[in-house]
Amino acid sequence: MPSRVKLIDVGPRDGLQNEKTPVPAAVKIELVQRLQDAGLKEIEVTSFVSPKWVPQMGDNAEVMAGIQRRADVLYSVLTPNMKGFESALASRPDEIVVFGAASEAFSQKNINCSIAESIERFAPVVEAALAAGIKVRGAMSCTVGCPYEGEIAPEKVGELARLMKQIGVQRVDVADTIGVGTPRKVQAAIEATLKHFHIDHVSGHFHDTYGQAVSNTLAALEMGVWNYQSSVAGLGGCPYAKGATGNVSTEDVVYMLQGMGIDTGIDLDKLVDAGKFISDFLERKPNSRVSTAVLNKRAG
Amino acid sequence: MPSRVKLIDVGPRDGLQNEKTPVPAAVKIELVQRLQDAGLKEIEVTSFVSPKWVPQMGDNAEVMAGIQRRADVLYSVLTPNMKGFESALASRPDEIVVFGAASEAFSQKNINCSIAESIERFAPVVEAALAAGIKVRGAMSCTVGCPYEGEIAPEKVGELARLMKQIGVQRVDVADTIGVGTPRKVQAAIEATLKHFHIDHVSGHFHDTYGQAVSNTLAALEMGVWNYQSSVAGLGGCPYAKGATGNVSTEDVVYMLQGMGIDTGIDLDKLVDAGKFISDFLERKPNSRVSTAVLNKRAG
Repeated sequence: MPSRVKLIDVGPRDGLQNEKTPVPAAVKIELVQRLQDAGLKEIEVTSFVSPKWVPQMGDNAEVMAGIQRRADVLYSVLTPNMKGFESALASRPDEIVVFGAASEAFSQKNINCSIAESIERFAPVVEAALAAGIKVRGAMSCTVGCPYEGEIAPEKVGELARLMKQIGVQRVDVADTIGVGTPRKVQAAIEATLKHFHIDHVSGHFHDTYGQAVSNTLAALEMGVWNYQSSVAGLGGCPYAKGATGNVSTEDVVYMLQGMGIDTGIDLDKLVDAGKFISDFLERKPNSRVSTAVLNKRAG
Repeated sequence: MPSRVKLIDVGPRDGLQNEKTPVPAAVKIELVQRLQDAGLKEIEVTSFVSPKWVPQMGDNAEVMAGIQRRADVLYSVLTPNMKGFESALASRPDEIVVFGAASEAFSQKNINCSIAESIERFAPVVEAALAAGIKVRGAMSCTVGCPYEGEIAPEKVGELARLMKQIGVQRVDVADTIGVGTPRKVQAAIEATLKHFHIDHVSGHFHDTYGQAVSNTLAALEMGVWNYQSSVAGLGGCPYAKGATGNVSTEDVVYMLQGMGIDTGIDLDKLVDAGKFISDFLERKPNSRVSTAVLNKRAG
């Protein structure tokens, strides 16, 4: 069991990208500020995708220019292709993220190409990033289940990890994009990934659609995984099930880790405040049980 | 890791007792029916407490008389004292439950006596039940944290378990009544209990107030615990934090167990229907992520 865990908050990107309410750049910038004030050391800030497809991230350069960067915080951005990477360059991200899938059908429907084609598309992006001294993370989506194909075999996850490794991706996320995973299945997906990546370069990215994300985190911790993606206030919801939960809330994960004596460097109260800030803006309650309980307790 | 798990649905009693909307006996009877149709083999049906304190359970005899009992299902009722037990007798429960606390302050505030006094009060109830061929379960509340005392030391849990054993209680629940537990703390409470009770006679009862109940279930499974209490649709809420979650939903626990290949004998679809039935009556959404996801999926 690791004695310390690093959390990567994907709320500003993966979360807000799926929110209907338009969020001004200034609000995104304040959210990033609040997250780093709460102790987050990695933040997925925005994406450089065509605003035709993802208008929510159209202010990417403005947000990247507006955040008060700290030397000990890593700021990552999603860049799906060479064009996105070139746009991102001027914003000097510490890391870029390429987004693949372990499911052929999901790859086709989500990024309009086969898994093999996506790797071909990522290869020059990865090469250019590394040449520019920018780190590269590979998001591997649908590693447990797919909304179109159903269950995904660990072999497919291993194959995607192999391809990611081959093109120079430095670390990967094992993502349960639709939150259908349970402990053993998540462990099998991670196991398959570990054939190609060192444990230090594998992160867990669990969705809480079926209420399993915290226990899947425990299962991954037991394998030694110490990097996890989560989203403050559970931002984002689930694009595949209206009204359902998507990304696990950072608050719920931090609560478990702190309770287990695992160091996260995060101040839970400030984190709850950050989640409350953005949820207030979105005019909804934080989608986090810890946040609900803490805010109730504060209210007396 | 156990290959099969028995779930005790406490929704009709522990759940509905904390709901504000009055629920007619006929609805409770249908809920019990639906739970056993879904495959539940243990159901906490009602309590025999003074209706002055718990008016929601004033129809206890009517409910017990109305349910269609099955030979392979165990029906339990809460009996806090001799008077309650005597009233319960005519309803022929398979098991009675006595409700103690590992926290002195909680015992005082919740049942108006010290832990020692509660044990004295339970002793004749346990004796009479066993003499009448009725099983006895002991609920041990606040085994991890207490709303008044804060963290509870495992030694206090062990001491309560010892006292329960001494008066003849056959099995006990290790309950995290306010849902503050995390895996290691819950394991420590169970460990302390195992000094006095065999693993087959220890059940986990986790609240999801801080989103930890499913992962605490995983942690307890890893110790071999194979009996758990949960509440269909997360009935009951949390009396100590308005608007917060209380009992973990049976649906969320079953989903994890099924995903891990652990036999529960429960039909998840029928269980979701049972939760939807009572939630519709209460005019609210089921407090279960699995239920939300399943109902969304059905709606397309």
